Amino acid sequence: MQEPTIDVQQQIAISERPGEEFQALPWTRQRVVFFQLPESIQRDVLDGIDRQEVRQFVRRLDPDDATDVIGLLDGDTQEAVLSQLDTDRRERIEFLLKFSPDSAAGMMDLDYVTVDRDQGFEEVAQLVRRHEARTGRFPTVFVTDDDEVMGELPGHTLVLAGHGRADITEYLRPTPTVRYAQPNSEVIAVFRANPQSKIVVLDEDDRILGVIYADDLLRAIEEEVGQTLYEFTGVDEQESVLDGALEKIRRRYKWLIINLGGGFLAAATVGLFEETIAALTLLAIYMPIVAGMGGNAGTQSMAVTVRGIALDQISLRTGRRAIGNEVLAGGANGVITGGIVAVIATLVNQSPLFGLVIGIAMVLNLVIAGFFGALVPLSLDRLGYDPATSATVFITMATDVLGFFIFLGLAQIVLL
Amino acid sequence: MQEPTIDVQQQIAISERPGEEFQALPWTRQRVVFFQLPESIQRDVLDGIDRQEVRQFVRRLDPDDATDVIGLLDGDTQEAVLSQLDTDRRERIEFLLKFSPDSAAGMMDLDYVTVDRDQGFEEVAQLVRRHEARTGRFPTVFVTDDDEVMGELPGHTLVLAGHGRADITEYLRPTPTVRYAQPNSEVIAVFRANPQSKIVVLDEDDRILGVIYADDLLRAIEEEVGQTLYEFTGVDEQESVLDGALEKIRRRYKWLIINLGGGFLAAATVGLFEETIAALTLLAIYMPIVAGMGGNAGTQSMAVTVRGIALDQISLRTGRRAIGNEVLAGGANGVITGGIVAVIATLVNQSPLFGLVIGIAMVLNLVIAGFFGALVPLSLDRLGYDPATSATVFITMATDVLGFFIFLGLAQIVLL
Repeated sequence: MQEPTIDVQQQIAISERPGEEFQALPWTRQRVVFFQLPESIQRDVLDGIDRQEVRQFVRRLDPDDATDVIGLLDGDTQEAVLSQLDTDRRERIEFLLKFSPDSAAGMMDLDYVTVDRDQGFEEVAQLVRRHEARTGRFPTVFVTDDDEVMGELPGHTLVLAGHGRADITEYLRPTPTVRYAQPNSEVIAVFRANPQSKIVVLDEDDRILGVIYADDLLRAIEEEVGQTLYEFTGVDEQESVLDGALEKIRRRYKWLIINLGGGFLAAATVGLFEETIAALTLLAIYMPIVAGMGGNAGTQSMAVTVRGIALDQISLRTGRRAIGNEVLAGGANGVITGGIVAVIATLVNQSPLFGLVIGIAMVLNLVIAGFFGALVPLSLDRLGYDPATSATVFITMATDVLGFFIFLGLAQIVLL
Repeated sequence: MQEPTIDVQQQIAISERPGEEFQALPWTRQRVVFFQLPESIQRDVLDGIDRQEVRQFVRRLDPDDATDVIGLLDGDTQEAVLSQLDTDRRERIEFLLKFSPDSAAGMMDLDYVTVDRDQGFEEVAQLVRRHEARTGRFPTVFVTDDDEVMGELPGHTLVLAGHGRADITEYLRPTPTVRYAQPNSEVIAVFRANPQSKIVVLDEDDRILGVIYADDLLRAIEEEVGQTLYEFTGVDEQESVLDGALEKIRRRYKWLIINLGGGFLAAATVGLFEETIAALTLLAIYMPIVAGMGGNAGTQSMAVTVRGIALDQISLRTGRRAIGNEVLAGGANGVITGGIVAVIATLVNQSPLFGLVIGIAMVLNLVIAGFFGALVPLSLDRLGYDPATSATVFITMATDVLGFFIFLGLAQIVLL
């Protein structure tokens, strides 16, 4: 029985010689495994096999996949591999290599034919057959009127008998379009609104450059959505679990240093109450609870808001009700958890007054968490920044600084 | 010009009468907008329009989309709407309604025809034409051998002229299969390995039930990947930014209470050093930095590991090197950030010894963060639990408890 892909993949990733492991696989497995490896390992694999083997691998891939592979090679190897492919293939790949892999053009296929609105079904069928004979693939048929795209002629209309001299424009399906340089995220948004269509990629002059199919978009969507979790935690979007330690250090330390700034602000806030703490060490013991719960509630509000922004469900303009609901929810959950803490603190420390102080501090801190958890990502989005990347820093800072200030300030007033 | 979808969507979501807003849209917009609304708002919309209007909306949707809409209605309305659809459509939807929307069967389409391996191209073309005439859609053609699926006959083979008496089995493309009850996540994994294929859905007896196309999977993938961020922060996967406050409270308070447990453990750890803190209040001031940085580094390691698990790039078995790298990266980033804190603490508090203590504590805490950040999700995955949901609780607990213990313990030994 065949070894499961996941095992092969991991085997290659942890191998000392990933190229050799990869080379030993049959082509059909190579194709599946390669595109599921993180980019750093893909490079290792390609470095570890000779040019002849790279050519063998690339030769039978779709042009857009082949382009992704060849894009990972250094200049010399690129040329050597390209020069060995047949002309038609080489030209397609060279064309695709000109575009950024993270743009509409980087995702597109070249399997399309364009026909003029005046052409008949028989002529279209001939073009389709010729494309199929040359490339082994069935093209999408776009109908144009003086170079302007009118729409797609669905492939099955060619199968239906008895068209006679029917006008092909009667069978058109409208096709959404994107510019070749639009980033993946915008292409995904277009697709989300037209999930059952192919997308036409146009150049500056509105001429057709290529076509994007649903399966081309899947990898982009996985990357885009998965990215949010990374941004949330300050990890570079390129990082993979299989990267080496040096990569990981490089990709993370900056974010940790930025967070350190927030940490010092929180420390300074606590420092304001140094004498209060000296008089009542109990406060230091409960500090982690106040800060921790505020942080947890804040990231909850933020996760929901960031996702709503990503799915185009909310913006700062329409967000007033959502912010209000986050504040309400934060307050209510503050009453629940703050109540629990208040009861336990009262019992353990035999001080109802202290219980009251920590209970109130927690309610207020969770209200703050809800407010900033929703407001910060919406504002960052409005200002044109990515809402996920920088929001955690601000929100944690707000819940830490204000949470400590309220807790220790209240304690100073009430308990001393 | 048409208002952008995002505005219409948000308009409906914040409206007092979402049904009326929806009703005012032309059908083509209704179709786009509806499926981008969160489920709670979808229900509000359907509650706010009459049955006749629901029928109008459903009538022209694909059967699988129509099934999703009808599945949101209460029993009475469901029957009333179904009874008004034409028989063919009603039967398809009633069939699809039997399955869970989060399973393979919940995603599948019914646009397929099966042909026996002995049938010729002309017979197949006739079946295809008949299906197209009846449903307006071009079916996928599956070739079977005594009820067992052999593969798909690509649609374009029907367009190519000159088949004569060719054997259809020579043109087959293998098709991946899933069982009807397999959860979305498993279907996505199959698709990831075969991105250019349709997927056949089989019943218990290996008979074909339906077919899943790439566009059916996109929504499922967005949900699955986006879910990780929610699990990470303890938000119910169904929650939307547009939900009301009560929903939000209900969906989040449990996780907050669980985290409260971790908070009390951290507090208890600090409590062990009450006298040390009383003697040196400075320690309380730096506590937020130790805890905060440990938490940040831990979630970084965890985010990378969780994503690696989701993409099948790693498991506990192959994870030893990854855990090692996380520990190394944690240690190194601990040296960088701990170094900064040590210098600042030395200068501000005029105590190199205190600087040394907090520096060492931070290095160790970031090592701990890397170790648990990678180990916990891998272990949870191995034990069959979801790695994202529960891991944060454990990891924060580890970095808080051990971080405070090391920091305060070191201080007690060195400084007092």
